[in-house]
Amino acid sequence: MSTLPHRVTLVDVGPRDGLQNEKQPVATEHKARLVSMLQDAGLKNIEVTSFVSPKWVPQMGDNTAVMAALERHPGVRYSVLTPNMKGLEAALPTKPDEIVVFGAASEAFSQKNINCSVAESIERFAPVVEAAHAAGLKVRGALSCALGCPYEGEISPDQVERVVQLMKDIGVDHLGVADTIGVGTPRRVQAAMERALKHYPLHEVSGHFHDTYGQALSNIYACLEMGIHTFDASVAGLGGCPYAKGATGNVATEDVVFLLNGLGISTGIDLDKLVDAGAYISEQLGRPPVSRVARALLAKRQG
Amino acid sequence: MSTLPHRVTLVDVGPRDGLQNEKQPVATEHKARLVSMLQDAGLKNIEVTSFVSPKWVPQMGDNTAVMAALERHPGVRYSVLTPNMKGLEAALPTKPDEIVVFGAASEAFSQKNINCSVAESIERFAPVVEAAHAAGLKVRGALSCALGCPYEGEISPDQVERVVQLMKDIGVDHLGVADTIGVGTPRRVQAAMERALKHYPLHEVSGHFHDTYGQALSNIYACLEMGIHTFDASVAGLGGCPYAKGATGNVATEDVVFLLNGLGISTGIDLDKLVDAGAYISEQLGRPPVSRVARALLAKRQG
Repeated sequence: MSTLPHRVTLVDVGPRDGLQNEKQPVATEHKARLVSMLQDAGLKNIEVTSFVSPKWVPQMGDNTAVMAALERHPGVRYSVLTPNMKGLEAALPTKPDEIVVFGAASEAFSQKNINCSVAESIERFAPVVEAAHAAGLKVRGALSCALGCPYEGEISPDQVERVVQLMKDIGVDHLGVADTIGVGTPRRVQAAMERALKHYPLHEVSGHFHDTYGQALSNIYACLEMGIHTFDASVAGLGGCPYAKGATGNVATEDVVFLLNGLGISTGIDLDKLVDAGAYISEQLGRPPVSRVARALLAKRQG
Repeated sequence: MSTLPHRVTLVDVGPRDGLQNEKQPVATEHKARLVSMLQDAGLKNIEVTSFVSPKWVPQMGDNTAVMAALERHPGVRYSVLTPNMKGLEAALPTKPDEIVVFGAASEAFSQKNINCSVAESIERFAPVVEAAHAAGLKVRGALSCALGCPYEGEISPDQVERVVQLMKDIGVDHLGVADTIGVGTPRRVQAAMERALKHYPLHEVSGHFHDTYGQALSNIYACLEMGIHTFDASVAGLGGCPYAKGATGNVATEDVVFLLNGLGISTGIDLDKLVDAGAYISEQLGRPPVSRVARALLAKRQG
């Protein structure tokens, strides 16, 4: 039996990735309060917002206001998504600790979504990465559609490694392997992760799994067996799957913490406070948390 | 990396374990139709009903009628739960292939629920097992609360092994380790399974996991790594958690099949037909399937 990591770092992407597709505007104060509750629960890494055109993602139009409203805690890293130089320039004055750029492992996805090849899309990030580094910021690269693509179907480890190499070439510091449509299963996830680990050290590789088909926790467990110890997750399972309406998206942070607690792996996160944070934002959205742990614990609290 | 089994046997417990706690009566014809759709989907093992007092479990009061309504397929094994001699005697004329008896790993659970010790409860099954064997039937033993108990909390591998030994002593042929309240996580599940495997061969040990905290698939994956290749599951995730109202219970068969398909492990099950079966019974119950795979695939079908 393989040895599992003793400690895992979770990055809560709920405020950004989770909320970005919400149709109804979420008030800036609720977003800031969510971040505040997450850090109170012990999260040390929070993806706060994105600096993209409000025409594309209206929900993130209050990015500067959200960043200004944060009550920052020492030791907590606040990251923002910046897809281009304009985004980075808008983000810099708000003083994030880290920026996130993203590229797809799938050519079809890249062509359909941003009308250019994968290589071209990564190349466009080169000046963003350079400018971020010049400003002293770390750059996380998110490799989307790493296990499957809504247009192309299954994605091979070779396709993954090609984009990992491109990200490495432009100086991306951290590589996040993202199963955007949630079709990955443990052994295929391990095969993709192996390719990331050929180019990045263990502590600079993370997994981002979606629970659309209920596979996220098994995939995380399979990554733990490889020693991978950084994962994205989204409180209350915020963020549905954009390719199957009504289906589940991001794995819920609560569910990941329950798994890690059970494995005796420390996260520094207080599960009850995390459930409170998820219940808070879910109440604002007018629906129950998607997290199974949250639902079970909230049902228990009600007796 | 451990070698996984090439083939897995799934036992669908939806018609019995899944439906038994439904408050509204489900018509006998719908139950029979569900079994029919499950076998059409490729299930070779189906837990059909239970022979318990209708005062205790009114939903299973039509047990004889359901058994009579089955259109049996060759090669499919139909099992029924028989908690005592009276149940067995009622079951025998309906010609099941297998009977199921159950005992808890937790003393507190046993005392609270059936007002006797675990050892006493198992001892009471001895004549049932003997009579079932005399009638040529196989006996599956379900070991409930194997990872945790709603009254006692965490259950140790020692407690599990003690009951495994008791089941073995009375001649139970197959041992199912059941995480009744869904609190198990992979390494603790493996520790419990190791104890079962000290007394039963690999092909006579199975896992029964609940998804109350979303952990069922990682637990199944952890069992696969040990070579365990028989699992209970419930189509559409039928059967909520009796200890946390509104929370999820049995792992959905659809979700398990998706995992196994992704791992390249054959089950003989057609996932689309399985989703149909789950959608059918869910429609009768007036609610959507709990299975994440079912919800994602049904959403996709609607475009």
